[in-house]
Amino acid sequence: MTIEIDRVGSFHLPGREATVSGIPPREDVLTPGGPVRVIDQNGTYEVEQIYVQYVRLAAPRARYPLLMWHGGGMTGVTWEDTPDGRPGWQMAFLEFGHDVYVSDAVERGRASFSPLPGVYGGEPFVRTKQECWEGFRVGPVGSWHEDRDKCRAYDGQRFPVDAFDGFVRQTVPRWTVNDAATQAAYDTLIQEVGPAVVMSHSQSGNFGFTAALHAPDKVRAVIGIEPSGTPLPDQVDVSTVRDIPHLVVWGDFIEEGTRWPGYQQRIKAYRDALRAAGGSLDIIDLPARGIHGNSHFPMMDDNSDAVAALVQDWIESKGLMK
Amino acid sequence: MTIEIDRVGSFHLPGREATVSGIPPREDVLTPGGPVRVIDQNGTYEVEQIYVQYVRLAAPRARYPLLMWHGGGMTGVTWEDTPDGRPGWQMAFLEFGHDVYVSDAVERGRASFSPLPGVYGGEPFVRTKQECWEGFRVGPVGSWHEDRDKCRAYDGQRFPVDAFDGFVRQTVPRWTVNDAATQAAYDTLIQEVGPAVVMSHSQSGNFGFTAALHAPDKVRAVIGIEPSGTPLPDQVDVSTVRDIPHLVVWGDFIEEGTRWPGYQQRIKAYRDALRAAGGSLDIIDLPARGIHGNSHFPMMDDNSDAVAALVQDWIESKGLMK
Repeated sequence: MTIEIDRVGSFHLPGREATVSGIPPREDVLTPGGPVRVIDQNGTYEVEQIYVQYVRLAAPRARYPLLMWHGGGMTGVTWEDTPDGRPGWQMAFLEFGHDVYVSDAVERGRASFSPLPGVYGGEPFVRTKQECWEGFRVGPVGSWHEDRDKCRAYDGQRFPVDAFDGFVRQTVPRWTVNDAATQAAYDTLIQEVGPAVVMSHSQSGNFGFTAALHAPDKVRAVIGIEPSGTPLPDQVDVSTVRDIPHLVVWGDFIEEGTRWPGYQQRIKAYRDALRAAGGSLDIIDLPARGIHGNSHFPMMDDNSDAVAALVQDWIESKGLMK
Repeated sequence: MTIEIDRVGSFHLPGREATVSGIPPREDVLTPGGPVRVIDQNGTYEVEQIYVQYVRLAAPRARYPLLMWHGGGMTGVTWEDTPDGRPGWQMAFLEFGHDVYVSDAVERGRASFSPLPGVYGGEPFVRTKQECWEGFRVGPVGSWHEDRDKCRAYDGQRFPVDAFDGFVRQTVPRWTVNDAATQAAYDTLIQEVGPAVVMSHSQSGNFGFTAALHAPDKVRAVIGIEPSGTPLPDQVDVSTVRDIPHLVVWGDFIEEGTRWPGYQQRIKAYRDALRAAGGSLDIIDLPARGIHGNSHFPMMDDNSDAVAALVQDWIESKGLMK
């Protein structure tokens, strides 16, 4: 099918201005064979902005735009083509009739980052291939091997393992100190384009739940794909979001001895708190529904379209389509 | 107008695998209040990949896809909305009927970067606001002031000066050592999606001209918007690209005492070499045509649509539309 769009484009939402001083100028050659130039990094910069790319349909069937937020060490590319080249969830949800806003969080991807000392504090880090493989449940802990013929994925794994290096190319460095700035930027995004539906993945799960608490008048639903955290129920007033439908989707291979059972427990605790306040959080546990083999990235797995359709069914059931 | 698209999506093109060893593990807290985790950065990574995002039309009127390559310290955002929120050249050339492929070069934006010592060599740097203002010809050298009320843009400046901070949010750090990897990735891109038309800006001018020399059978035209360099005519055989139309577009305020007259001289020398070999390079010098006030970023200036139309006219005149 083809889709008729009104516009594709992007914008940044501001963070803050940073002033840097006291760095000794250095000399460098910008182009091989070119002149030596003095690089003086002292001055003012924009930092902590986020990047948002939108595709707006000519005739959206969804009532509200869909905001897609990526996880830690990733960018909005999470939602674009799968590593093995199939259409991703950006395309799937456009076809379902949503205006789609895909963002890059603070210091990730097209949001830019500051390499200068003192701007953020802390140091960036980036996941090794082994961490991606074992941490995202492509294979069990201990199954990675630098000799790739010896790598062992989970039996029945739906992640496109042959395109694993392509997936790794999507990963980006991260700092650990910019959560507050990221939350603030997402809150601003909702004020700018809301009312809206938020779809988060992994690290951004917490940002999504929190965004609803910060703007219960603007968030129409919160969807967490494999969320790695929630606000602490005893530190927030979840009664303010009791009218906002919440959904969480879990993949497979969530085993004892990893951090994933703990993440599931946090979601259950948040669901219980929502229920106690008269709200709701639905859980689509794929293996419990007989759908086996999904990794931490169901939007990239070989059944990504089928999982997207389940999410879309839920959106439809909540009256969020025209 | 609305546009009918077949698909929007993205992919990365591979660089190389890097192995990092000898970095002492450190401890860090990934989420405020969360557990201390050991961060061990030793392992294998994908580096030097580029990111390519495409919008493919249902019925392109152009014969070949249009590849849009950004300049130094920028990303593909260059081609998206202008800093003051108007549609950019990605949208303009989609409306003209081109399939558009916007990329982020090696270590820029969604192409990711490596923060680890020894992977690239050298150190990243990023432009201060002053460097953006003066270097990109928003105002003359010496016109920047940290007290913004005292900043003085060129008279008749068409760059959206009120959105200058929004522009700065698009800038990203750069290394100086990855030109060869970037060229190799662009060459691969042309093999993957060509035959194609290449549109470069600033730093990528050289990559675009060189890409034609590397794949004269696949590059159908080379368009350099304010290109900051060319191959050295006496070091390449420009006769191989004599059948490929070349275009360069220059904005205003190119004054003595800056580096811009030198860039113009290099283009003239390259044009002369092309002519001597039976080829051609057309130059649209906007001020010489009576169009005054353009900065280094004509795709963002207030007459961006008019300049895009001039480029499209040239494309049309070269028989590149169906």
